[in-house]
Amino acid sequence: MTGNGPSLIDVARAAGVATATAGRALGGYGQVSARTRERVLAAAAELGYRTNGLARSMITGSTQTIGVVVTDVANPFFATALSGITDVTHPAGFEVLLANTGGDLDAERRAITVMSEKRVDGVIVAAAQPGEGAHLKQAIGAGVPVVLIDRLVRGVPEADTVTIDNEHAATEAVAHLLELGHRRIGVITEAVSLVSGSRKRGLFPSAVRLRGYFEALRAAGIEPDEDLVGVARYDRGSAYDATMRLLAHAAPPTALLCTDNVLATGAYRAVQDRGLRMPGELSLIGFDDEPWTTLVRPELTVVEQPTYELGTRAGRQLLDRIADGGRPRRPHHVELHAKLVARGSTLPG
Amino acid sequence: MTGNGPSLIDVARAAGVATATAGRALGGYGQVSARTRERVLAAAAELGYRTNGLARSMITGSTQTIGVVVTDVANPFFATALSGITDVTHPAGFEVLLANTGGDLDAERRAITVMSEKRVDGVIVAAAQPGEGAHLKQAIGAGVPVVLIDRLVRGVPEADTVTIDNEHAATEAVAHLLELGHRRIGVITEAVSLVSGSRKRGLFPSAVRLRGYFEALRAAGIEPDEDLVGVARYDRGSAYDATMRLLAHAAPPTALLCTDNVLATGAYRAVQDRGLRMPGELSLIGFDDEPWTTLVRPELTVVEQPTYELGTRAGRQLLDRIADGGRPRRPHHVELHAKLVARGSTLPG
Repeated sequence: MTGNGPSLIDVARAAGVATATAGRALGGYGQVSARTRERVLAAAAELGYRTNGLARSMITGSTQTIGVVVTDVANPFFATALSGITDVTHPAGFEVLLANTGGDLDAERRAITVMSEKRVDGVIVAAAQPGEGAHLKQAIGAGVPVVLIDRLVRGVPEADTVTIDNEHAATEAVAHLLELGHRRIGVITEAVSLVSGSRKRGLFPSAVRLRGYFEALRAAGIEPDEDLVGVARYDRGSAYDATMRLLAHAAPPTALLCTDNVLATGAYRAVQDRGLRMPGELSLIGFDDEPWTTLVRPELTVVEQPTYELGTRAGRQLLDRIADGGRPRRPHHVELHAKLVARGSTLPG
Repeated sequence: MTGNGPSLIDVARAAGVATATAGRALGGYGQVSARTRERVLAAAAELGYRTNGLARSMITGSTQTIGVVVTDVANPFFATALSGITDVTHPAGFEVLLANTGGDLDAERRAITVMSEKRVDGVIVAAAQPGEGAHLKQAIGAGVPVVLIDRLVRGVPEADTVTIDNEHAATEAVAHLLELGHRRIGVITEAVSLVSGSRKRGLFPSAVRLRGYFEALRAAGIEPDEDLVGVARYDRGSAYDATMRLLAHAAPPTALLCTDNVLATGAYRAVQDRGLRMPGELSLIGFDDEPWTTLVRPELTVVEQPTYELGTRAGRQLLDRIADGGRPRRPHHVELHAKLVARGSTLPG
């Protein structure tokens, strides 16, 4: 914005007051008489003067802006969470500065740096990598409250967090399949770092869900079979291929859990193309209760995440932190619960 | 951000230079020797000084930020367009300030005001109402470039626009149904202001698509029947109800066009619940090639909009405008073409 409009000096001159007085009247700070304020506001209106939000921000110390950093704004999960965040923060007078990182850590670091420079009042971050929190720690150290959403990050114990109990979410899904008599239960997952049987602490939803999958199987006395773990990249085509590989196995799974809604669209298509009847020949569970999951036949059994609430809780948590003026306080952790919605893709009709 | 970190004065003191010199060295403007710059940067790094983006913005006149205003960030259409915008503007060094208006004009006015105050370098707007452009005209007048996306707005002839040829998109869809022999073709639409047969110029996609629907019928010698126009609010349940009403008609339609992807999810479900075979008893066309449209059986015939490109073109157009420094220039209008993707919901298998 190059600003060829009237300046504060023009307004002050038109109102017949000092520039500093005009600044106080327009900025709503400091001492100024009601009569002077009126005269300045009238002059500003007549000239079409636009309040300089930057100047005001430098004085009040607040930009009434929060940053939101997500990995994929086109994923309905993040779009819905974002709508929860804005529904809470807009009425409180905050605008949202959004960054879409595509899951790239460098893009996330740049976003945090830029937002920090722009003096956002706080940030909500769905992090790109669980092990990389130095830039977040630095932002908190500089006085920018950080609320982690959906994913935990190592090395930032001072950040507030709002997440889903992903281990329980996956455990419940597998328990549902076990109850229906399944023993060969496969999984389509993004988690690559967590090897079968390892207790390594994966913090991301996909890793936590995979851990829940392993634990539910072991609790039922079933030793997990690595051949039934289909690792996919975060895209539909990759999930399709991973599903096709599992289904081509000599002893294929009779049931599959997909740990994400994007992966579920690819897996559903693969089961269709393979010509398998659901749930008779293959039972399938996805994540997130998207509209399409009740349009397909059979309807898809899903783990329904409270996605919108994830956004509203994170928004409120950040507003609390901002209202607190950045005073050091113990981090606040919210864990929400997902619920299994059983439908035709697992329940015989 | 309340900023308890080191100040510019602290950095200047540590580097043994004047505050103004330290400001020039850190801000990258004005004259300063290489040796002094190094000393200041070293002192800043040691103290953990955070560059004040606001102060720099006030000097350079650019905030390297663009505003994006949409009506529903959770609609995959806008999420995808937004991802196109950020993919173009992030590499150019711009962050995105997002506002989600929910289609509320007052929310849009507030968003434009706040963004304008925050000195965004330009805005991309998917407007809430076609007839209300005064606030956009004002922003342009104040030097903020505006690119309208998806929807045109009356009274802002100076704004750049990037839209879809929606009339042709709808015409092509109806022509496809006519070719298949349909004569009673219904439509599920959000457009309420455009009465059948009126030439009133509706500017919004839903209104333009409805006009295309009427024109395609008339071109085929069919007088449109108002009983076949199902008006719905912008939500899935309302589209479901509108579809159910049309299907309950004494002489029901044999084909339906839905003018939006959200409406299509409701209509598809209604046809399923009514127990009608597609395409034998009812043919259905939706908008937007979402993943679910090939998971349902039959697959849904859709008008595929170049949604991602809509975002990238709008982003590039705005960058061009910003590079131009806000010099008055004739508005630039881009109109992209949608294409019909014929599938099982209209084509007998």
